[in-house]
Amino acid sequence: MSTSPALRFVTSREAQVEELPWGPHEWLSRPELVAAEELLLVRVTMPPRKGHAFHRHPNMEEIIYVVEGEAEQWVEQEKRILKVGETAHIPKNLVHGTYNVSDKPLVFLAILSPAKAPGPPLVDVSHEEPWASLKASSAP
Amino acid sequence: MSTSPALRFVTSREAQVEELPWGPHEWLSRPELVAAEELLLVRVTMPPRKGHAFHRHPNMEEIIYVVEGEAEQWVEQEKRILKVGETAHIPKNLVHGTYNVSDKPLVFLAILSPAKAPGPPLVDVSHEEPWASLKASSAP
Repeated sequence: MSTSPALRFVTSREAQVEELPWGPHEWLSRPELVAAEELLLVRVTMPPRKGHAFHRHPNMEEIIYVVEGEAEQWVEQEKRILKVGETAHIPKNLVHGTYNVSDKPLVFLAILSPAKAPGPPLVDVSHEEPWASLKASSAP
Repeated sequence: MSTSPALRFVTSREAQVEELPWGPHEWLSRPELVAAEELLLVRVTMPPRKGHAFHRHPNMEEIIYVVEGEAEQWVEQEKRILKVGETAHIPKNLVHGTYNVSDKPLVFLAILSPAKAPGPPLVDVSHEEPWASLKASSAP
């Protein structure tokens, strides 16, 4: 049996909620919550017309999994509308972005690994080219 | 831009399906599908009265996320009924099991990391004590 005080089960009651400009984040797995070493898991509820603009995670791999609604998901310069149960896989350091161009809330899981990566967790590139022009032409 | 032929977007069409005794597995992320290094993701549809008996992953951390139905989830000797959107976090090598004791299908995500771990990916301990007696007393 573990002697760690870390949680083994996480529901909405235990989730750590963070308010970000592109919607509330419910953290379901991170080091301070479950003593995660490998896995970050956050459920994002993105209102219509919001987006998490182009960015990259230099040392984390990521999966986006749509739980509700539809996501306009970019991986590099490729775009796809992801529906419930569909995913994007984003290797380390690849530029990506998630936008809700619908008129309903979008709920998705962002899964990142490892949980404890060196360097900056996130680098915003949304004001650099080609990303700025890409999304200017299809902005919500 | 990546020159890898790995997929960036995975839907049910691209998922690699594996039939296991405790229900079909749709692989959404693994090395041969998306060139995953860190993240395995599989969606399991578990019929009523089935279970993935007590086991451990010596070198992988895991999260269970319930998508539909209810899971009787064990982590070590602690049991919880997980509903939609609820999770279990399972550190490396901790014994755990997932059972559908309801009369409806259970759909859950199993997220494991790293994707390329040394040693056996899974060790079945369901016939060892205390696990054999634990589930004998609450078997579906």
